[in-house]
Amino acid sequence: MIIITRPDISDDELDHIRERVESAGLHTHLSRGEHRTIIGCIGDESRLQELPLRTLPGVESVVPVLKPYKRASREFSVDRTVVQIGAGATIGGKSIAMIAGPCSVENREMLHETAVAVRDAGATVLRGGAFKPRSSPYSFQGLGREALRLLVEVRAATGLPVVTEVLDTRDVDLVAEHADMLQVGARNMQNFALLAELGRAKRPILLKRGMSATITELLMAAEYIMANGNDAIVLCERGIRTFERATRNTLDVSAIPVLKRETHLPVIVDPSHAGGDASLVGPLSFAGIAAGADGLIVEVHPDPESALSDGDQSLAPSAFAALMDRLSAFAVAAGRTVAVPAGAPA
Amino acid sequence: MIIITRPDISDDELDHIRERVESAGLHTHLSRGEHRTIIGCIGDESRLQELPLRTLPGVESVVPVLKPYKRASREFSVDRTVVQIGAGATIGGKSIAMIAGPCSVENREMLHETAVAVRDAGATVLRGGAFKPRSSPYSFQGLGREALRLLVEVRAATGLPVVTEVLDTRDVDLVAEHADMLQVGARNMQNFALLAELGRAKRPILLKRGMSATITELLMAAEYIMANGNDAIVLCERGIRTFERATRNTLDVSAIPVLKRETHLPVIVDPSHAGGDASLVGPLSFAGIAAGADGLIVEVHPDPESALSDGDQSLAPSAFAALMDRLSAFAVAAGRTVAVPAGAPA
Amino acid sequence: MIIITRPDISDDELDHIRERVESAGLHTHLSRGEHRTIIGCIGDESRLQELPLRTLPGVESVVPVLKPYKRASREFSVDRTVVQIGAGATIGGKSIAMIAGPCSVENREMLHETAVAVRDAGATVLRGGAFKPRSSPYSFQGLGREALRLLVEVRAATGLPVVTEVLDTRDVDLVAEHADMLQVGARNMQNFALLAELGRAKRPILLKRGMSATITELLMAAEYIMANGNDAIVLCERGIRTFERATRNTLDVSAIPVLKRETHLPVIVDPSHAGGDASLVGPLSFAGIAAGADGLIVEVHPDPESALSDGDQSLAPSAFAALMDRLSAFAVAAGRTVAVPAGAPA
Amino acid sequence: MIIITRPDISDDELDHIRERVESAGLHTHLSRGEHRTIIGCIGDESRLQELPLRTLPGVESVVPVLKPYKRASREFSVDRTVVQIGAGATIGGKSIAMIAGPCSVENREMLHETAVAVRDAGATVLRGGAFKPRSSPYSFQGLGREALRLLVEVRAATGLPVVTEVLDTRDVDLVAEHADMLQVGARNMQNFALLAELGRAKRPILLKRGMSATITELLMAAEYIMANGNDAIVLCERGIRTFERATRNTLDVSAIPVLKRETHLPVIVDPSHAGGDASLVGPLSFAGIAAGADGLIVEVHPDPESALSDGDQSLAPSAFAALMDRLSAFAVAAGRTVAVPAGAPA
Repeated sequence: MIIITRPDISDDELDHIRERVESAGLHTHLSRGEHRTIIGCIGDESRLQELPLRTLPGVESVVPVLKPYKRASREFSVDRTVVQIGAGATIGGKSIAMIAGPCSVENREMLHETAVAVRDAGATVLRGGAFKPRSSPYSFQGLGREALRLLVEVRAATGLPVVTEVLDTRDVDLVAEHADMLQVGARNMQNFALLAELGRAKRPILLKRGMSATITELLMAAEYIMANGNDAIVLCERGIRTFERATRNTLDVSAIPVLKRETHLPVIVDPSHAGGDASLVGPLSFAGIAAGADGLIVEVHPDPESALSDGDQSLAPSAFAALMDRLSAFAVAAGRTVAVPAGAPA
Repeated sequence: MIIITRPDISDDELDHIRERVESAGLHTHLSRGEHRTIIGCIGDESRLQELPLRTLPGVESVVPVLKPYKRASREFSVDRTVVQIGAGATIGGKSIAMIAGPCSVENREMLHETAVAVRDAGATVLRGGAFKPRSSPYSFQGLGREALRLLVEVRAATGLPVVTEVLDTRDVDLVAEHADMLQVGARNMQNFALLAELGRAKRPILLKRGMSATITELLMAAEYIMANGNDAIVLCERGIRTFERATRNTLDVSAIPVLKRETHLPVIVDPSHAGGDASLVGPLSFAGIAAGADGLIVEVHPDPESALSDGDQSLAPSAFAALMDRLSAFAVAAGRTVAVPAGAPA
Repeated sequence: MIIITRPDISDDELDHIRERVESAGLHTHLSRGEHRTIIGCIGDESRLQELPLRTLPGVESVVPVLKPYKRASREFSVDRTVVQIGAGATIGGKSIAMIAGPCSVENREMLHETAVAVRDAGATVLRGGAFKPRSSPYSFQGLGREALRLLVEVRAATGLPVVTEVLDTRDVDLVAEHADMLQVGARNMQNFALLAELGRAKRPILLKRGMSATITELLMAAEYIMANGNDAIVLCERGIRTFERATRNTLDVSAIPVLKRETHLPVIVDPSHAGGDASLVGPLSFAGIAAGADGLIVEVHPDPESALSDGDQSLAPSAFAALMDRLSAFAVAAGRTVAVPAGAPA
Repeated sequence: MIIITRPDISDDELDHIRERVESAGLHTHLSRGEHRTIIGCIGDESRLQELPLRTLPGVESVVPVLKPYKRASREFSVDRTVVQIGAGATIGGKSIAMIAGPCSVENREMLHETAVAVRDAGATVLRGGAFKPRSSPYSFQGLGREALRLLVEVRAATGLPVVTEVLDTRDVDLVAEHADMLQVGARNMQNFALLAELGRAKRPILLKRGMSATITELLMAAEYIMANGNDAIVLCERGIRTFERATRNTLDVSAIPVLKRETHLPVIVDPSHAGGDASLVGPLSFAGIAAGADGLIVEVHPDPESALSDGDQSLAPSAFAALMDRLSAFAVAAGRTVAVPAGAPA
């Protein structure tokens, strides 16, 4: 940590700052410039995080030198992490991972129909909401346990592993018993009680970026889960909140290469929530893959017009198949591959 | 709800849209302008909320007519809500409510010392964190249950009712047994599982605005709690996230008069988190009261330099007393009063 | 325009609103719902733009029906616009346009060296700053007229048409005499005096999106130029300002498909300013092309370490050539082509 | 400037960085910590501003030590600046300055009527737009020169000095001949050609913050004017652009105390543009004064419903008088005074 002092700092103030830092077990090191004296703090920087150095008399600003995340950082792992989902799917390798399925599990028929359609088009993981975080208490809140049972059934029928969101610490065990991957939604990215509980779960986690979370905060949310024991995490960029109103959110496509630089964890893109509009799913999917994403998570519904949630941004199965068709050229351009669809000839 | 159609809409598309709306039990009403045909939807608008009308062929945009919140809306209650905290304190009446205390309960001595100091300076409610939402898993996470016991002790000693944050649905009952008011932090404003659980609690709720939550979303979070049975809610503006980096957050002071227009619930301001700097607490407190806030929540620590959390933005007791001194003139200018300090002569 | 009234509107208020609208020459049309009365305004909506309808007693909100831009809108032109730059280059057709060159023209040698290098790698237009908008008055402000002369010289030597920024209404004629295309920088996107003057110039305009401009405002800026007589405009997405600090700006990649839906004008991406970091230019370029952009504008410097401005985000010629190499596969995936480099075999 | 290096930096990279810094005439100073080596750069930091140090091999980040503004900084002037407007008005002293008047000068009668009304209510400077920056080319653009003549006439009649906006470098002399203070609008805050020209004007400048400008950028815009010779500058906070849609902009009330800490220049608030709604002008005015602003600039129109621009946010004269009535108590609470209205008894 580096402390930049004010031009008018007194010797007493300077001594006091150094004592505070040294009392935390670090060494200090002065560098006197023409206009400012700089205090370098050498040692275990994490011990300073709790100290309110910035408002000590004579301090102008405090600059951390180390990144606050450790296990999530690029330096922590020589190899990039590849996350295993169920028996057959992975996220993070050369192949682009495709997660697809309905926003909400509405009933057995629609889930099964969607699962078969997306599998045959090349999806490798099925998504489907059981517990839905809805901004209105009067909206459809998901089928809950019943949806979990349907996900298990459809997994058995189609072979696709399933990912579903968990909203409540009390539901973590239940959801982990049924699903192959647990999702943390954007609104819960800093629900630290939930993150800690998921650190104790024996399932990989799909962690969505909060709508106003910085990239550093996203990595700290991953760090929470990892510090509690679970290293199998996939990060998901799903659009951030900005002043622009033409789209539901603003896809932060730059976050993909920045995350690739900062962490060993895989990164996917959610083009459905980012744009909030079915007509934008294609361009945002292509952009995400072009920028280096390891996969996509796309909302698909057999009949978007009758969807109980997110119909505006859901693709019909035929549109999803068309997306997959176009996607492979972008994947190849990015030096990646797309999984061969289950129904395709060898 | 009003549906604005595209200039090139076909009759079939128009019919299809009307059928979708009418199948939800509403009437439609066409208004043909020179460039656009408008479809008015008359009836229970909430039935349309789940329909993905925006992406139907021929639709350009969809404009809701009604506010999504009901119980939280200004029309719902003739009178402004006054929330009772413990036996003696209220928020929402003519008197400015002052909540003050440490970010975290660190031990009995510091909590007691702070409580006596803020009470004597005019605070009416004591704050103190037991379960702390920290962005790093390696930071101090609060004393938990032990802190709850200390809050009860100090309440008994000082007469101040206490407010503390709850992070986990599993802790709601426990916290409600100990505290007089339960706080939802900014990061949990859209933790819908927690909001629903708090709707069933028998304590008033202090609901902080999420750092990128719109005013409408804040009111929908209140609606969640109210729809689940708890109408005693105090809203708190604590700064939003913007591009500006000179302050920790940007206090949205305009939200105060907007909330006063939109809801009957009381509104307070958190100047400590908004500015993130002890030197800004005064100006932001005065601005909040001048804009019409019903109270403030301020972090106070006996020795901010040694605080285990938020030391940068905490006031020493003497600074809090000085703040209270200056505050009353602003309160009077705003047509309000400040409670007479417990220690003051009658 | 549609006026949504308050639930408690009186008949007098309603009459007053209708009179105001009708006095502007439009008809009104009432639609009475269960909770609200809606006033449809039929006729020339632009006449209402100046009326302060929103604060008339009884009005809750006002919803415009028509887009505020006309000449820039998709409906205005059957065909997508292709902008001609100098004799040989175009932006907007099937081929991806590549604009490249130094941030600032520093001297003849560096400009010539860069121009030859980018042309041989496939660039079709040369960029180079003469008048530089610098956030500090103490920074290098560009060579001005001397730079214009150098651009003309290097154009003659390399055959590349040139684009350069104009900052001041007084310089428009001068710059138009020297350059093939005039650039409006992000900070001047709403410099309406400059936009109007550029409407009278006989050169195509490269219009950059302001850093907090909405897509609608960008189109209104184009409309300003078009309404003053110049229809040859290329729009440029160069990143918007958000809370995220890991990148200089946030590339709004979604703006590309949205602009393609809203306007007939071509759209390019500036990956250099968006990311502010040479290492991000590749991923953002690929993402932009994948999302449907018609071209890119990239900063290239013979020796970025010694650049007088924007060295952090400039590519060396070899890095630019490598970018072009990888780019063509993305262009093909997007159904586009990249111009064959001047130096390539036929 | 401090350079934080990567953990894996090589000795050659370290040497190269030092050479680059030293070639600019500064000394370097190494501080080796456990995880990182820090390079302190001692000497004239401004020489490093143009160097692209951030992307040199081995560099992780670069931290400036000095503020980029000099003349605008708090250290530059022992005393706070008081700006003189015309013969009698000042901004920056103990008395709160009130600038009021119509958005646009529409005709002689309305300007005169407004001027008399605001003067009698306590305004000390008259505002009135001659050249209007309008987001649509089809909107009323102001009366231009005719408006300047009317401002001169009404100044003579009422004794109020006048402030009006200048949009074009070509108009600076003309406007300076007529007005007592020249305004730079939010959209031109980084129109550097205009700022430089205003540095050469012999009139004080009212500099509005750009809608996405940081506080540092606002001060750098002031620095541009000052570096070109004009030190009489009043800064104006008028709301910034955020995600919140309930208000036209978000008044950044925290900017007031931050600016008071960073600069000696006076700071006023524009509550009319910040909120965009007449009903918010009161609360935002009070908040601004409570936070320490030196004055306000308020839009007043004799009949807001018929205003040619900004009618939604303009106060009628009676509402302005009521505002002034309530304002003085807040001014007193803030340790300030409000000028005694011209029409008031001595």
